[in-house]
Amino acid sequence: MTVQPSISLAGIFPPIPTPFQADESLALDHLRANLERWNQRPLTGYVVGGSNGEFVYLSEAERLRVIETTHEFIPADRLLIAGTGMESTRGTLELTRQAAQHGADAALIVTPSYFRARMDERALTAHYLDLAEQSPLPLILYSVPANTGIDLPLGVILRLSQHPKIIGIKDSGGSVAKLGAIMKGAPPDFQILAGSASFTLGALAVGAVGVVAALANLAADQLADLLTLFHKGDLEAARTLQLNLIEANSAVTSTYGVAGLKAALDMQGFYGGPVRSPLQALDHRDRAALREIMLRAGLI
Amino acid sequence: MTVQPSISLAGIFPPIPTPFQADESLALDHLRANLERWNQRPLTGYVVGGSNGEFVYLSEAERLRVIETTHEFIPADRLLIAGTGMESTRGTLELTRQAAQHGADAALIVTPSYFRARMDERALTAHYLDLAEQSPLPLILYSVPANTGIDLPLGVILRLSQHPKIIGIKDSGGSVAKLGAIMKGAPPDFQILAGSASFTLGALAVGAVGVVAALANLAADQLADLLTLFHKGDLEAARTLQLNLIEANSAVTSTYGVAGLKAALDMQGFYGGPVRSPLQALDHRDRAALREIMLRAGLI
Amino acid sequence: MTVQPSISLAGIFPPIPTPFQADESLALDHLRANLERWNQRPLTGYVVGGSNGEFVYLSEAERLRVIETTHEFIPADRLLIAGTGMESTRGTLELTRQAAQHGADAALIVTPSYFRARMDERALTAHYLDLAEQSPLPLILYSVPANTGIDLPLGVILRLSQHPKIIGIKDSGGSVAKLGAIMKGAPPDFQILAGSASFTLGALAVGAVGVVAALANLAADQLADLLTLFHKGDLEAARTLQLNLIEANSAVTSTYGVAGLKAALDMQGFYGGPVRSPLQALDHRDRAALREIMLRAGLI
Amino acid sequence: MTVQPSISLAGIFPPIPTPFQADESLALDHLRANLERWNQRPLTGYVVGGSNGEFVYLSEAERLRVIETTHEFIPADRLLIAGTGMESTRGTLELTRQAAQHGADAALIVTPSYFRARMDERALTAHYLDLAEQSPLPLILYSVPANTGIDLPLGVILRLSQHPKIIGIKDSGGSVAKLGAIMKGAPPDFQILAGSASFTLGALAVGAVGVVAALANLAADQLADLLTLFHKGDLEAARTLQLNLIEANSAVTSTYGVAGLKAALDMQGFYGGPVRSPLQALDHRDRAALREIMLRAGLI
Repeated sequence: MTVQPSISLAGIFPPIPTPFQADESLALDHLRANLERWNQRPLTGYVVGGSNGEFVYLSEAERLRVIETTHEFIPADRLLIAGTGMESTRGTLELTRQAAQHGADAALIVTPSYFRARMDERALTAHYLDLAEQSPLPLILYSVPANTGIDLPLGVILRLSQHPKIIGIKDSGGSVAKLGAIMKGAPPDFQILAGSASFTLGALAVGAVGVVAALANLAADQLADLLTLFHKGDLEAARTLQLNLIEANSAVTSTYGVAGLKAALDMQGFYGGPVRSPLQALDHRDRAALREIMLRAGLI
Repeated sequence: MTVQPSISLAGIFPPIPTPFQADESLALDHLRANLERWNQRPLTGYVVGGSNGEFVYLSEAERLRVIETTHEFIPADRLLIAGTGMESTRGTLELTRQAAQHGADAALIVTPSYFRARMDERALTAHYLDLAEQSPLPLILYSVPANTGIDLPLGVILRLSQHPKIIGIKDSGGSVAKLGAIMKGAPPDFQILAGSASFTLGALAVGAVGVVAALANLAADQLADLLTLFHKGDLEAARTLQLNLIEANSAVTSTYGVAGLKAALDMQGFYGGPVRSPLQALDHRDRAALREIMLRAGLI
Repeated sequence: MTVQPSISLAGIFPPIPTPFQADESLALDHLRANLERWNQRPLTGYVVGGSNGEFVYLSEAERLRVIETTHEFIPADRLLIAGTGMESTRGTLELTRQAAQHGADAALIVTPSYFRARMDERALTAHYLDLAEQSPLPLILYSVPANTGIDLPLGVILRLSQHPKIIGIKDSGGSVAKLGAIMKGAPPDFQILAGSASFTLGALAVGAVGVVAALANLAADQLADLLTLFHKGDLEAARTLQLNLIEANSAVTSTYGVAGLKAALDMQGFYGGPVRSPLQALDHRDRAALREIMLRAGLI
Repeated sequence: MTVQPSISLAGIFPPIPTPFQADESLALDHLRANLERWNQRPLTGYVVGGSNGEFVYLSEAERLRVIETTHEFIPADRLLIAGTGMESTRGTLELTRQAAQHGADAALIVTPSYFRARMDERALTAHYLDLAEQSPLPLILYSVPANTGIDLPLGVILRLSQHPKIIGIKDSGGSVAKLGAIMKGAPPDFQILAGSASFTLGALAVGAVGVVAALANLAADQLADLLTLFHKGDLEAARTLQLNLIEANSAVTSTYGVAGLKAALDMQGFYGGPVRSPLQALDHRDRAALREIMLRAGLI
């Protein structure tokens, strides 16, 4: 099990939701069916156990089963990135080791956040460096302040980007100024993934290589086109695509959250299914509003 | 296993830290030794698995072992309150059931917080009502915005206070205005615990029955005296005691956190020991400053 | 014009609203009529030009006319505290000098806040010390984070409390822990005013001498009774009064703001009148809800 | 005085600082000298009375003198945008009228913010629509949450963008997702100005026409080049320029603020001079650090 610093994160990664039965138990058969559909889409790989995977509601055993199942049903040339963050360093390391054994290619590590007043630069740096030293997998930093209340500081990111086993960052904060500062200060092979489809074009403009976005579950083709157009230099067409995705992106993130994403998947013929409590299902009115948004964006 | 709505929360409860060996593994022998000392102090009971117990860094098995060990080594007439909050409702319920079997008398349930934008009144109410319906233990709400970013709303608290199995709240937010509004709006038998020694007197003034405070690990006698003086009507002496505790309280909470609390316990001859990473130990300078504060407060 | 460090702030101070005509121009005749009614109530003095006075919507000339008019129509033995805070130190000093010439007995100085990232301990300390050195009036610090986003830090307050011309603080933050820490660390003659009727009893318990509260415009008798009962040691009756005031207090502060306060004054037969835009008048539904709350609290 | 809906905001606008003498009084001669230098740079126009102009520290008379002086010393084909926001609608309208008479071409209106809990969609919409109805000048919305705590909501912006006299927005919040949503939802002639040089390229990518940035005072040529390269389709060269500006931009905004901007102007041979208190001058260490940053960016 050797580290592969040459893993390329360029492209589109859906952070896939974890399907549940009506009783909230894992629905791995639905996961398999969903994967078979996503496998037809222009995706570079998958993120499992991210925020959209409701990882905080899964036991460690469930997190591993999702990794294992996904590994089994995706092509060998697609990357499997596993969210393995726990609040403690030791817990995160242990889960990362297990994830490696269950088929993950890289680990996405969310910032610990419960003791936020203590999660200063020293603590965060120590956490990630300890992990990098011992992890069997290459690591991707994960900053998602909307959920954690912590915006991984630029100085910490630049310090960590020097470590050969820390290969990139998924930043969902939405500041392309920060992404630009990372690009400027980090080694050339440190890879930036936009954490949302809402600012993908801006992120590409300053050097991001790809995107991990809830909307990639629903709009893989459009996002792949956006990247292609951008790299061809057709910025105007890229912008049109980008602007067309923002409303639908908001709907399945800030407006309706994971329940919205799952409802939208149901509308597309995937299995979305229920969220785990205390997340709440969309009511009829919200579902109708979501359908309108999906229609307007050409996604159903 | 029947609910005992008659449990009284009046008095002092230390939220005890979880002792670790140098390698961060559980140190249950030290827990036992600490308990034997605390058992000599004027305490009504113990909270295990709270924020100061670093519950987010413990596996579920570890959380249960701490409950079990504490149950074994405390007198039968002292309450054992177990923090059993998880992010998911189902996880919280399962852990609460296990906690009951391992000796807990009541469960302290922190607000779920990862998907904070979704933790609206509907979600929080559903979470706690589901738990109340199914829990074998009486429940105590736990609002600690400094850690979770969520201040359990007054309207939700008042709604939940109507449920016979929800017997009280530990509120660490520091607003005695909110505590007063709870007192005014909740049933008479709903019990308020101040979540810090820094505003205990103000909380008592509006009707709190007790306190769950990090400082109770270090200053049980002084806090017990504070309650006694207050109930005797000697407000001036109570105030002198209260003001004398604020600086030390800040030191082991907002200033130095759990690492400060453990260092202070070491200074008193308890076993404090290390925190789990990513929490960081106090450096020499901070430790010296903490010692000065403890001396000034008469706590060493 | 000599400083009177012996000014006592003990008691009840309404931060009076500024009455406007329907066209939003100053209505000094209504101010006079209101003062004549308040003069019959058990008040120690008045705060003009505070947040409830919509000071940010008044020109400097208007601020001075309100001071002058109030000075003219209140008894000589009642204190006139004028809010004279501006964003700049020089502007604040100039307005404070003018306020002194127009009859103010003390100046209440809100924290500057526009460049909040720069309003660190050094800037805030320099601001207030410069003012204290040059002001003809004794100064009262004013921390109101709900409006300014700045919670005047404890360390700054304690440093400033050493200055003989800084005689006290109005703190609206609601943390009695902080008030206790001020009591503990400041000189004995530094006076604390609770900034809201919602936590008055808790503030008194840790040593506050009085209260500047929107609700004092509407419930002076009840607040005076609360202080009397507290000082007589009848804490239970004081608590009953305190709890009874919290809902009405919220209504005229956090829930409906100054427009709510003015609407409630109208209900009591005072002249409340309109607020200045962009503040918005209460709609019919909110006004009806406010009336219910006022009735429940026995205030109409 | 007729409205010119055809005003184009395309290009670079420095929000110029207000020069003060050592005693903090206005230094209009230095303003003139600075303008004569800026007039040689590739700028579309000037913003006076913005955050970097320390408008909150200026009297209304001073704000008008700065407008008048700037009007006098800039070429007729350069736009003069005046910040005329006050907390009240009536005050803002009056100052906007005066600004028009003193030579301003458009008014930049910051969100009112003191009563932030009341500044909901209804209040903000009413404020700007009232102004638009009555203002003699075309209006530009100004959202700067770092100073005001208020992020002008997308829905309000889209509603206001329908008004013919509201011609654009300066958004300093840094979210290109929000800028994209404005582009998508607003009329085609509604113009977006990036409020910082740190995210200019990302903003251009989604359709912004220009930039109002502190750094434009120091790096007009580089920013003009950035726009030119972008419009030529040389995204890689544009990115190199963009990344090179981020550190210097942070230095004169988030890190050192207006005092940093003024110190940097001094380093370039402009007159920066002192800030008004309570803003504090840079100390020697910070000044040295700033010089290093300016050197690294090739700006001195």
